[in-house]
Amino acid sequence: MTIENISRNKSFGGWHKQYSHRSSSLNCDMRFAIYLPPQTLAGEKVPVLYWLSGLTCSDENFMQKAGAQRIAAELGIAIVAPDTSPRGDDVADDPDSYDLGKGAGFYVNATQAPWQQHYRMYDYVVSELPALIEELFPVTGQRAIAGHSMGGHGALTIAMHNPDRYSSVSAFSPICNPMTSPWGVKALTSYLGGRDQWLQYDASELMKTATEFVPALVDQGKDDQFFEAELKPDTLSAAAKTSGYPLQLQLHEGYDHSYYFIASFIEQHLRFHAGYLKTNGDTA
Amino acid sequence: MTIENISRNKSFGGWHKQYSHRSSSLNCDMRFAIYLPPQTLAGEKVPVLYWLSGLTCSDENFMQKAGAQRIAAELGIAIVAPDTSPRGDDVADDPDSYDLGKGAGFYVNATQAPWQQHYRMYDYVVSELPALIEELFPVTGQRAIAGHSMGGHGALTIAMHNPDRYSSVSAFSPICNPMTSPWGVKALTSYLGGRDQWLQYDASELMKTATEFVPALVDQGKDDQFFEAELKPDTLSAAAKTSGYPLQLQLHEGYDHSYYFIASFIEQHLRFHAGYLKTNGDTA
Repeated sequence: MTIENISRNKSFGGWHKQYSHRSSSLNCDMRFAIYLPPQTLAGEKVPVLYWLSGLTCSDENFMQKAGAQRIAAELGIAIVAPDTSPRGDDVADDPDSYDLGKGAGFYVNATQAPWQQHYRMYDYVVSELPALIEELFPVTGQRAIAGHSMGGHGALTIAMHNPDRYSSVSAFSPICNPMTSPWGVKALTSYLGGRDQWLQYDASELMKTATEFVPALVDQGKDDQFFEAELKPDTLSAAAKTSGYPLQLQLHEGYDHSYYFIASFIEQHLRFHAGYLKTNGDTA
Repeated sequence: MTIENISRNKSFGGWHKQYSHRSSSLNCDMRFAIYLPPQTLAGEKVPVLYWLSGLTCSDENFMQKAGAQRIAAELGIAIVAPDTSPRGDDVADDPDSYDLGKGAGFYVNATQAPWQQHYRMYDYVVSELPALIEELFPVTGQRAIAGHSMGGHGALTIAMHNPDRYSSVSAFSPICNPMTSPWGVKALTSYLGGRDQWLQYDASELMKTATEFVPALVDQGKDDQFFEAELKPDTLSAAAKTSGYPLQLQLHEGYDHSYYFIASFIEQHLRFHAGYLKTNGDTA
């Protein structure tokens, strides 16, 4: 397994680094970012929080704008931020859409042409990337997962499918019920075809029938312009009540969909994950 | 005085807002950003930290990447971030240079054609913008000033020319001696003409002969790629020794010129300024 270091910046006593590597899941070259807290410089292995970004983002948005490194440095947690889709000239795209194709992988394994050749972000995030990180960096096998908007959808669905692999999950402004949102319907139709394939990628549908639980924290701004049409936190809340899912949903007056919202509450999310990462052993 | 609100985002209980207005100093429309901490929502007036950004930046970089709002909210300090040059289709530019023209105003009053019609960032930052802020927002007359790289040069020179207007000054990776750096020589030649006009805009030259002091904090990464050729912190340090200037210069192993460096130490800068803003009355 070879990866290439393409940037490094010292940050809060640790290191922010970007790497490129050939992804076998996605059949293209990919870039990711990792924050290694200062504890790793002293030889310590630390747990990892995977962060999944939203539509139009790359590995850079969270690392530059969320202000997470300060708390990750204090708590001794590494953060890994993958890109949001496969990339490259030979990767299918819908250049007129910000919500389909490059920058909009939706963390699914596509089955429909022309997407199925590269758009397998679910496999990349769940299996290939953690295997690479755990082979090449000073980390334990303990994992948490979080994300924003499309990435919040990704984090919730991935955690619910893999309760043995993640200690905890959190999301900011997640797409909670993509089967009924314009963003979700467009992406799921294109990547998966018929509606019978959509259930497996809908956080509210999965949560309603869940029997194995991952502690979950969701924050949502009440002035988010996508609140009603795209995000639907009430649907997720109702689903959690049905199954008894350990979901903590917090609504915040005045906050919107931006990184100014994420930055305001990221500290709570990191401390939430730290509580579970410290008390659990390695996950599967 | 009319200004137009063009964006707002709730942030750490306060508000980040962008405004556009017609600048009489710069003879063009300008955009700036302001962070109003939660204390202002309760009717309190707060002091202001002016932040001057570096080459290629706008009003957005610091607000998005530095993570300053968390501490400003705690301390009750507003932050104002102007753009780095005049803007607009009729403003002179050097489109092939990132270090001259738009995005590179160097916080001087230009005297040479074609720059002198719009490039008067010194007057804008020292006089016009504070007058506007203090008329229209819930702030006191207490001011501090800080900046990065070209903006660190701007903050230091502006504070030294106006010790009655600023309680304290700080800088990350400032251009300390622009008369001897490639960035500085290019800009000062274009904007001001002959070398006899440069001294007034050189922080090391001003500090060497200063008799009125503004408490000053400077942080510099030792792995900054511009350390030797462009920034020259040793020159500033020597100048401070000559005049007895109250300069605290901190060098940091491993840190570079990026916002990852600024974010790592911005808390110290805000607490430094808060100490002087709280103990002083209104400045002139």
